[in-house]
Amino acid sequence: MAAQRRYSRVEEADLRALRDIVGPENVSTRGWDLAVSSANAIGEVEGRAEAVVWPASAEEVSEVLRYCSERGIPVTPRGSGSSTSGNATPVMGGIVISTRRMNRILEVSREDLLAVVEPGVVYESLNSKLRELGLFFPPEPASGSVSTIGGMVGNNSSGFRAVKYGVTRDYVSGLEVALPSGEIIRLGTRAPKSSIGYDLVRLFVGSEGTLGFFTKITLKLRPLPEARRTGICYAESAGRAAEAIFDVMASPARPSAIEYLDSRVLRLLSESGYPYREAGAALLVETDGTERAAEDDMSRIESICRSRGGDFRRAGGAEEEKLWSGRRALGALVARLSPYIIVGDVDVPVSKLPWIVEEIYGLGREAGVGLVVFGHAGDGNLHVNILAGGRDPESRRRAEDLYARIIERTIEAGGAVAGEHGIGVEKRGFMEAQHGRRVLELMRRIKEVIDPSWIMNPGKLLPD
Amino acid sequence: MAAQRRYSRVEEADLRALRDIVGPENVSTRGWDLAVSSANAIGEVEGRAEAVVWPASAEEVSEVLRYCSERGIPVTPRGSGSSTSGNATPVMGGIVISTRRMNRILEVSREDLLAVVEPGVVYESLNSKLRELGLFFPPEPASGSVSTIGGMVGNNSSGFRAVKYGVTRDYVSGLEVALPSGEIIRLGTRAPKSSIGYDLVRLFVGSEGTLGFFTKITLKLRPLPEARRTGICYAESAGRAAEAIFDVMASPARPSAIEYLDSRVLRLLSESGYPYREAGAALLVETDGTERAAEDDMSRIESICRSRGGDFRRAGGAEEEKLWSGRRALGALVARLSPYIIVGDVDVPVSKLPWIVEEIYGLGREAGVGLVVFGHAGDGNLHVNILAGGRDPESRRRAEDLYARIIERTIEAGGAVAGEHGIGVEKRGFMEAQHGRRVLELMRRIKEVIDPSWIMNPGKLLPD
Repeated sequence: MAAQRRYSRVEEADLRALRDIVGPENVSTRGWDLAVSSANAIGEVEGRAEAVVWPASAEEVSEVLRYCSERGIPVTPRGSGSSTSGNATPVMGGIVISTRRMNRILEVSREDLLAVVEPGVVYESLNSKLRELGLFFPPEPASGSVSTIGGMVGNNSSGFRAVKYGVTRDYVSGLEVALPSGEIIRLGTRAPKSSIGYDLVRLFVGSEGTLGFFTKITLKLRPLPEARRTGICYAESAGRAAEAIFDVMASPARPSAIEYLDSRVLRLLSESGYPYREAGAALLVETDGTERAAEDDMSRIESICRSRGGDFRRAGGAEEEKLWSGRRALGALVARLSPYIIVGDVDVPVSKLPWIVEEIYGLGREAGVGLVVFGHAGDGNLHVNILAGGRDPESRRRAEDLYARIIERTIEAGGAVAGEHGIGVEKRGFMEAQHGRRVLELMRRIKEVIDPSWIMNPGKLLPD
Repeated sequence: MAAQRRYSRVEEADLRALRDIVGPENVSTRGWDLAVSSANAIGEVEGRAEAVVWPASAEEVSEVLRYCSERGIPVTPRGSGSSTSGNATPVMGGIVISTRRMNRILEVSREDLLAVVEPGVVYESLNSKLRELGLFFPPEPASGSVSTIGGMVGNNSSGFRAVKYGVTRDYVSGLEVALPSGEIIRLGTRAPKSSIGYDLVRLFVGSEGTLGFFTKITLKLRPLPEARRTGICYAESAGRAAEAIFDVMASPARPSAIEYLDSRVLRLLSESGYPYREAGAALLVETDGTERAAEDDMSRIESICRSRGGDFRRAGGAEEEKLWSGRRALGALVARLSPYIIVGDVDVPVSKLPWIVEEIYGLGREAGVGLVVFGHAGDGNLHVNILAGGRDPESRRRAEDLYARIIERTIEAGGAVAGEHGIGVEKRGFMEAQHGRRVLELMRRIKEVIDPSWIMNPGKLLPD
C-alpha cells in the first residue's frame, strides 16, 4: 500500500539521469516551475514537486518511468492542473511529468470520425481545429479552455452536454500508455465497436494517473450540430422544476443541456448582472442538432415545462449568450463568497434530486454553513459549493463535517461521490463507503498488477 | 494458466453438495439437460457439462461458486446459449450454471430511466414491458427474442442500432456479481454519471463469464422513439455505397441503423422473395426519434445518397417490414448455403470498409471458398460468413485458414477481431495478434486477481 511504502527523494544523481533522458533544458528544480507544477485549481491540497520533467515522446516518458520505478520516486502526471480534486498535485513529492511538450494533434479523420492526439492537447484547441471540419469532441468540461485531453481521459471528465453526448469514457477508442515498468502498450483499436476481451481502455480511463501515463489518445468524434436553441423555465418551487426534469428526460425530445438553478443561485446570478430573475428554481435548457430537430426538441420541452406550470421563455442572440456565460461564471461567482470553499460533485439518481437538494440545504442550516448548489440536472450531477467561511481549523472542520454528511446522503440515495471531478486526494476518504471494502481491495490488487512499486500518482484515488 | 491447470471431475459427492444448495430438483445430470446446456447456437465448439444447476438467488450462486472454487470444478455461466462464439459451451466439462430461474424484472423507474433485472431476463421480454412505459433498452441484438440480459452484458452485445444508441457496455450502470470466492460484490451506482475510481463495471461487461456470475444488473434506459423511417439506397458499386456511408456519418443527420448489403447479398435476398433488387451494393437505412426528427434525418440521408448517385427510395408499411425481416433473416438464409459456416464478426474503421470487403472476397476467390458479407456499416461491423462447404477436415482447414487471413487484414486495418460476438472459444487464437503479448499478460493477471483457481468459464476469451 502507498501509505506503508517509503519513497525515495530526488537526488542530484536522479536529476542527472532525468536530464540524460529528456535533455537538460527539460528538467527543472527552479522554485517557480515547482510551484506552478504543484498548484491546485481549488482546495487545500498540499504537495510540492522535487523536480518537473517535460518529455517530448512516449519513449522519453517510458525511460523516465522505468527509472523512477527502479528508484522508488513518486511520479505525478500533469496536464494543465485544473483538477478540482487535487489530482495533479504531487502530495508525496517526487517528480511531476508534464504533458506540456506532448501537445500535437497527430491525425483527424472525417471518414473514421477519429482524432489521434498527444495528452497535452487542450480541449478547446482540438475543438477549434475540428470545427473547421464540421466535427467536435463533445464532453466539454467547464474548464475546456485550459483542460488537456490527457487530464480529461485520466479523470473521465464531462460537463453540460454529457446529458446528451456522454462523458469522456464514451469517446476513447484507443490508448497508448507508458506503464511504470517502462513498457509502452497499446489498448483498444480504431474500430467503432469491439468486444475483444477485458476492456482495459476503460480501466485506464478515469484511473487518475495511478496506472500509467497516456502518450497517445484515439478519440471518437461527432458531427457538429448545425443549430442550437436555448430556453429557460422558471418554476415556483424546486419540486415543480424536478417534475419538469423527469418529464423532459422521459420524453423523446432530447436536451443537449439541462441545468438546475435554485432560488439562491438565481438571486446570485441576477445580482451579478446576468439576465436571470428570481424564482423558486429554474432550468436552463439547450437543444441541438439539425435546424428542425433543435427547434422541435425545444418546442416539446417548452410544452412539457408549461404543462408543469413553468414560466418558459426562449432566448436568442445576446441574451442566450449571457444566460450561458452566467452559468459558466457560477464557479467563479461562488468562489468570491468565501475565502475557502469545498466543491462537491455528487451525482444522484434523477428522482432523488429534489430530495437531496433540500436535504443539503437543511444540513447546511443545521451546521450554520453557507451553501450554493447547482448542476447538470439531467445527469443528477450537483456541484455542491460549501462556503467554509474562513481557513481557520474550526471553519474547515465544520465545512468538512458537512461535506461528509452530504456524501453519506448521496450514497444512501444510490449515488456517486463524484460525477465528473474524480476522486483525487479530496474524496479518497469516501471510497470505502462508496464501494465497500471488498471492491476497494480488488482495485488495490489491480493497481498492484500494473504498478507494483506504487509510484504512479501516490496519495490519489485509493485510500491508504 | 487454464491449460496447465487440472480440473476436478464432478463426482457423486459434488452432486449431493450442489443439491443441498439449490434443492434436488435444480441439479440435473440427465442426458437431455446436459445436451441442451452444452449446445452451441452455431459453429463446432465441443464440450459437455457434467451437471447443470439452476439456482434461484445470488446466495445460491455464491454457495455454488465457493464450492466449485474449493473443488476445482469448472463453471460455465449460461443464459439462452445463443452465443455464436461458443461462449456458453462447457469446453472443460464441470457444471453449467443456468440463469433460467433468475429471470425477474425487479424494478423499472421512469424517473431514473433505470431497470434492475436478474441475468436470465430475455431482451424482448424486458423491452415489451418497457414499451408500456414508453421506454426501451436499445442495444438490440439480432437474437433479441432469445438472448438474455446476463448474456448480453457478458458479451457486450449489440446490433443494428448501435450506430446511434451504442452497445450494452454503455447502458450498464451497476452490477451485482458473485465472485468465484463466493463473495457477492456490488459495482457501480444508480447515478447517471460517475467518476469514482477504476471502472470495474466495465471490466466485468464483456468478460464473458470468466470473472464472475452476474446476479443483478442495473440498466440505463431510453425513451422510446415515437417514429421511424426506412429508406434503401442502391449504389452502382461498393465504393459508391461507401462514400455515401462516410457522408451520412459525418453529417448532422443520425441514422438509427445503416446496413451494408453487397451485390451477392442483394441477389440472395431477392431470390428468397424479399423486396430487394440486384445492384452493386445497397444501404438499408433507418432513422428514428420524434416524428419531425425521423423525417428530417431521413430526407437529409436521402439527399446525401442521391448526391452520391444512389437510387434512393423510401419504404413504408408492409414493404418496410419485409425489408427488415429480410435483413434479419440473412443469418438463416446464409446458413442454408453450407453445412458448416464460420461466422466472422470483424469491425474496421469505416474508411476501410470498401477496401476490406473487396479484400475479403479476393481472399475467398484465392482460397476457393464461398463467402457472404454483410453488416452494420455505420459501425464498421461486418459479419463475414465463410461457407466451408463440408465438415470434412480439408474443408474446415481451408475455411479456417481463410478466416485467419481475414483476421490478419482486420488487424492491419486497425480493426477488432470481434465487433459484437465476443471472443469465446473461436477467437482465442487471435487474441495475441489483436492485443500483443504484454496486454494479454495484463489481462491474465487481472483474471488471476479475481479468479485465482481459474474456474470461471475456462477455455474462453484468454488463450492458453
